[in-house]
Amino acid sequence: MLTAARPTAVNLGWAMRRMTARVAAMWHDPAPAILAALRDEASAILAEDRAMCEAIGAHGLAFVPDGARVLTHCNAGALATSGIGTALAPVYRAHAAGRRVRVFADETRPLLQGSRLTAWELQRAGVPVTVLTDGMAASLMRAGEIDVVLVGADRIAANGDVANKIGTYGVAVAARHHGIPMVVCAPWSTIDHATPDGAAIEIEQRDASEVRTIGGVATAPAGVAVRNPAFDVTPHALVSAVVTDRGVHRAPYSFTY
Amino acid sequence: MLTAARPTAVNLGWAMRRMTARVAAMWHDPAPAILAALRDEASAILAEDRAMCEAIGAHGLAFVPDGARVLTHCNAGALATSGIGTALAPVYRAHAAGRRVRVFADETRPLLQGSRLTAWELQRAGVPVTVLTDGMAASLMRAGEIDVVLVGADRIAANGDVANKIGTYGVAVAARHHGIPMVVCAPWSTIDHATPDGAAIEIEQRDASEVRTIGGVATAPAGVAVRNPAFDVTPHALVSAVVTDRGVHRAPYSFTY
Repeated sequence: MLTAARPTAVNLGWAMRRMTARVAAMWHDPAPAILAALRDEASAILAEDRAMCEAIGAHGLAFVPDGARVLTHCNAGALATSGIGTALAPVYRAHAAGRRVRVFADETRPLLQGSRLTAWELQRAGVPVTVLTDGMAASLMRAGEIDVVLVGADRIAANGDVANKIGTYGVAVAARHHGIPMVVCAPWSTIDHATPDGAAIEIEQRDASEVRTIGGVATAPAGVAVRNPAFDVTPHALVSAVVTDRGVHRAPYSFTY
Repeated sequence: MLTAARPTAVNLGWAMRRMTARVAAMWHDPAPAILAALRDEASAILAEDRAMCEAIGAHGLAFVPDGARVLTHCNAGALATSGIGTALAPVYRAHAAGRRVRVFADETRPLLQGSRLTAWELQRAGVPVTVLTDGMAASLMRAGEIDVVLVGADRIAANGDVANKIGTYGVAVAARHHGIPMVVCAPWSTIDHATPDGAAIEIEQRDASEVRTIGGVATAPAGVAVRNPAFDVTPHALVSAVVTDRGVHRAPYSFTY
């Protein structure tokens, strides 16, 4: 059930396979021993996840120089990981290093992870943050107010195509139009060598009510048709770099280290 | 007060100048005579506005062939004009002519004119409509689901640069990336010959609460910084055609007929 909960993200399945592998030879052991092993494995993943975030932050730090104005989409921060996040890890590291940095957070309709989560955690951490609606991002780029785009990923295909929260692709198109680096930050476990390219990634379709309402308030006529894909695919040609815990990867993407 | 109410739109000022010109020589006349003249002028504008919408619909009809899938942003329909709208006029004309047409309506955050107004009036008129969040538009274009973009305009500069609802520029960038025609439909009165280009257009900045809430529901942390420009500028290089009541205009834009 957990493995099937989200079809697009790949590191959830990765973690589940690791957990089941840990106890694969223990089915005749007493339940407390199996549970202890699972808890031990989960604790190891937790520690590794924190270290992974730190490594992404270290590898991505060069993308956030002093004075950087960073656009992000959705939430790929401390609320989405065990540590300091993926896309926000370089931001947290830069902030901790005394660099002046401001994050422009797309609100990320329909579920508003940008305004509800990213803005909240950055505000709490004392990192300057400005919320904008998704339709404002391209205009800010044109005005020269964005230096770099940092986003997370739910799955990265073998060729570097990236599935991430719906709206990421439009940001990538706008970034390319304005010559702004589009940097994807994600754990190595997000790379799916079994998926050749973005076309092979299943996109989760979610309930129409998420688009027709916000916080219980109707925003569209009852019964109107809506689209609600939870993710989109950004082709690797629009990705300037992929930062994982193993380093900075650039085209042509091979992901062999 | 009415003239200054919206700094970006130009045809509001145009109508006010016309109204005051009508009574410029009447200041010593009795008040009822002045009011009657103003009402007469307003009725004339109403009738002309309806005819303007019909003319835009006729000139723009070629952009909406049978089977067309039209993306629009904000509301430029019957609710925004005295007649059948500007951007939606070709859609209404195509629908009336028996052509199959579907409109994809960006919800248009922050004020949701797309989901609240465009979807409502199209649904009421029996025109198939699908609502999407602003961040989904580029993804639909990539999937080959959009044939043409039709939007309105609040001001068109002499060189063809277009000020329209925030988010329009991002749609234009995505349309160009995918080779999809970006067509601006607006009354001739929207063309401001006194404004040389988009850089000279004042952009109305609106209250932060519009981005921090939706229908009274908080969508962002209290006190967080936000951006809330009501409009953006799409440079003429990204505009495939401008349809006015006088015809279809293409680059290089001169607007002399």
